[in-house]
Amino acid sequence: MKTNVLNRLVPEGYRPYQGAETYRNMTHQVIPEVKTTNINKVIHDIGKLFDRLDIQDGMTLSFHHHLRDGDAVMNMVLAEIKQRNLQNLTLAPSAIFPVHAPLVELIESGQVSNLYTNYVNGPVADAVTAGKLKGLLVMDTHGGRPRAIESGELKIDIAFIAVPACDPHGNGNGMEGPNACGVLGYPIADMKHARIKVAVTDHLIDVIKDGEIDGDYIDHVLVVDKIGDARHIVSGTTRPTHDPVQLKIAGNTIRLIEALGMIKQGMSFQTGAGGTSMAVAQLLKNRMTALGVKGSFASGGITGFLVDMLENGLFERLHDVQCFDLKAVESYRVNPHHLFMDASSYANPHHPDPIVNRLDLVILGATEVDLDFNVNVTTDSHDNIIGGSGGHADTAYGARLAIITTNLVKTRLPIIKDKVTTITTPGETIDAIVTERGIAIHPRRTDLIDMLKDTSLPVMTIEALRDKALAMTGKPDPIKHHDDVVGIVRYRDGTVIDCLYRKEDVTP
Amino acid sequence: MKTNVLNRLVPEGYRPYQGAETYRNMTHQVIPEVKTTNINKVIHDIGKLFDRLDIQDGMTLSFHHHLRDGDAVMNMVLAEIKQRNLQNLTLAPSAIFPVHAPLVELIESGQVSNLYTNYVNGPVADAVTAGKLKGLLVMDTHGGRPRAIESGELKIDIAFIAVPACDPHGNGNGMEGPNACGVLGYPIADMKHARIKVAVTDHLIDVIKDGEIDGDYIDHVLVVDKIGDARHIVSGTTRPTHDPVQLKIAGNTIRLIEALGMIKQGMSFQTGAGGTSMAVAQLLKNRMTALGVKGSFASGGITGFLVDMLENGLFERLHDVQCFDLKAVESYRVNPHHLFMDASSYANPHHPDPIVNRLDLVILGATEVDLDFNVNVTTDSHDNIIGGSGGHADTAYGARLAIITTNLVKTRLPIIKDKVTTITTPGETIDAIVTERGIAIHPRRTDLIDMLKDTSLPVMTIEALRDKALAMTGKPDPIKHHDDVVGIVRYRDGTVIDCLYRKEDVTP
Repeated sequence: MKTNVLNRLVPEGYRPYQGAETYRNMTHQVIPEVKTTNINKVIHDIGKLFDRLDIQDGMTLSFHHHLRDGDAVMNMVLAEIKQRNLQNLTLAPSAIFPVHAPLVELIESGQVSNLYTNYVNGPVADAVTAGKLKGLLVMDTHGGRPRAIESGELKIDIAFIAVPACDPHGNGNGMEGPNACGVLGYPIADMKHARIKVAVTDHLIDVIKDGEIDGDYIDHVLVVDKIGDARHIVSGTTRPTHDPVQLKIAGNTIRLIEALGMIKQGMSFQTGAGGTSMAVAQLLKNRMTALGVKGSFASGGITGFLVDMLENGLFERLHDVQCFDLKAVESYRVNPHHLFMDASSYANPHHPDPIVNRLDLVILGATEVDLDFNVNVTTDSHDNIIGGSGGHADTAYGARLAIITTNLVKTRLPIIKDKVTTITTPGETIDAIVTERGIAIHPRRTDLIDMLKDTSLPVMTIEALRDKALAMTGKPDPIKHHDDVVGIVRYRDGTVIDCLYRKEDVTP
Repeated sequence: MKTNVLNRLVPEGYRPYQGAETYRNMTHQVIPEVKTTNINKVIHDIGKLFDRLDIQDGMTLSFHHHLRDGDAVMNMVLAEIKQRNLQNLTLAPSAIFPVHAPLVELIESGQVSNLYTNYVNGPVADAVTAGKLKGLLVMDTHGGRPRAIESGELKIDIAFIAVPACDPHGNGNGMEGPNACGVLGYPIADMKHARIKVAVTDHLIDVIKDGEIDGDYIDHVLVVDKIGDARHIVSGTTRPTHDPVQLKIAGNTIRLIEALGMIKQGMSFQTGAGGTSMAVAQLLKNRMTALGVKGSFASGGITGFLVDMLENGLFERLHDVQCFDLKAVESYRVNPHHLFMDASSYANPHHPDPIVNRLDLVILGATEVDLDFNVNVTTDSHDNIIGGSGGHADTAYGARLAIITTNLVKTRLPIIKDKVTTITTPGETIDAIVTERGIAIHPRRTDLIDMLKDTSLPVMTIEALRDKALAMTGKPDPIKHHDDVVGIVRYRDGTVIDCLYRKEDVTP
């Protein structure tokens, strides 16, 4: 196998990662959009729908993850695939959660042989780690996925789009209905470019006036009892942490941001919904309020916490690709400054003006960071697949300041190490690592290092951070994995930044 | 010159009309949509914009007519064309009104040499009738125009789109701003397929959340003092007539509709904003109320009168392509059942499910009707161009019952005659002619004739109607026109249904 510029192996037939800016020199074509010619679209029986669709072995089916761990649509389709004994399918859900455990059986039987996704955890991740997938797991970023679809690289035969409220023509949105989950930013590329599009709804109403799902593209409207349970869209904490170590990290982070002059009029901001990130948001809110700073926008997956900041005038607007809680859903429904953002406008490197490129500041997590500032959020230190980039690599690239917040040590393992197990996000796009014991600035950012010279912040080299970690944990045994590649991690431009390897004993 | 199936001349190089259903056998391709790659879009000076656009002689520029006789955008562009002495341009506004009189000078100078439009009256119509246009006036229908654009037949270099409220990314709508004119249904094909797209606004705001104008397509946002005066969107009467003859026609029409069993649950309806049409709408409202009938939808250009019917529960929804008054604008802004409809979804014959095909009933006007039920709304009986199809031919085709209401005689001229001056809408798509002295049913509709046998309605042959008219007026002198073709009237499928001829003495 050849290697890429980060010295990671790249399977034959795939393009090696060549640097975060290389996409600028790539040609990028967008395939034509596919509109429907169907008139009578409503159907109430998934079996009859499958008969009409004429689904064949080897096809590619796509899904979105706006219902997160409350999604019932993919499992519904999987049950039909199983019953019909379809073989060798490729699935392309934008993310896979524990609720999708029924997929494991189809992976084991070979009925599903390839996966494209941006994030996977739970039983499916374990099955792939254990080498049960016949083909490959291809992991994209949230911006890389619409790039792959729009360019025709990822050809989708049938897109199944869970739509919380839908009319008979297939116009729909996520604002109404018993399972309103808010913004539907991820399926837009699928809706425009898949060969056949099915809207799946449990709330068929006469008319949808405003909605991102456009009936002109929708071939079939499948009405079911339940598309899932929107209460489960709340994953993780979505509240500021109370853990003293994480609070220390958050405190260091906000001091760093302020010392770098980033808390300023018109600032734009993104963070995740994890406890440390939320604590940073809480502190940022306090500082913005104290300083009388009004930001321009916050973006990404949106929590009620960011809605509060919008409503308190701390941001002019929210660019929302996915609602992380029901408060965000309601805000999207009523607030004219809470805006829809599809995945391509959010993060596609070939979009002319993606929101990530307008970000001043992003706060991101890590399962591991290495001396080159490469970040892993795809596997843990035991080589188990536990997540994926999502928007991590996209926002790190786009934001003027990309900060990784992380504990120096977790469960007696160092987080800062010589080499990360898996590279999700290249170090060249990371500006700072903030831990409870110190802060490392990427040496390329001499401007930042200069600005911090006369502060009391615990700035040190990444090597010093690594040494502190090792002093606490001792040198961990190297993890052994098989050479068998079970998946690839693609950078947002579609090049391979790293591989995922089979591991015999999957830590549950 | 060859002739078409209606025995009208067709200039060389154009496809002859072959029947209203022929489009079903035509292949129809849609060219790719053109998205922007611009990031900094806002510009405040039309001169600087023209420098950037690099407008060349011979290009095609398009406009929409939502501001109707209050539009200032086309004139603004014309002034710049004049100053730069650009030559041989083709203009493709969706309609032309008296306010566009400055265009006459550019027609006379040859700077504008070809016109594509769906409707033209006033000084520009007179200039074309007088033979002053170097090239041709091509008159399409409201559904034929997006067909021509989407298919690549009408190639637009630059679309100038008046947008009453716009943000810096070019997202916009017609609901806000000092010149809010409501739904922007006509420029959507231009927005998607023109090579370059300019949003012209007098109300630049930070964020537009909901709007049919999508910044992904918009290359430039030109900010001007005034895009026009939305108070002038009210053209014609938009109120029921008080004229006793027209009231008689309206009364006959409603009796006809009821006798044919068309006033029924779920009915769909369209009419224009003329006095007789509005009187029919008024009577329909009364009958629907009395009978407890709830319709499904009304469509087309929308008046406050139809808004009242929606608000009184007489229709479930409005499909609005253009607001005809400010009450309709406000309703569109606030009422979730007042829906946006672009021209293609409205009436494009190659759209899979255009709204016109779902119409039960349409009430239309005429300047002339002939013994084959062909209808003229393009010229008057003196051969002056005074209008055009707009949605006339589209709705007549689509509706299950297409009724023409007209005075038998106007200004001492017969309206029912052997041959219409110009064929706008083919008789094969017309079901009934209603006048103050009698009703004629198209002989093809034996089903309708049977249903009316035992009624007291004054049903007679079209020849009998013609004879009644001639008895009142005497046989008018035949109109003489030159053989020079100044324009063509295209059916919705793009075939030529008739020609427009030069006339030396244009009746003002």
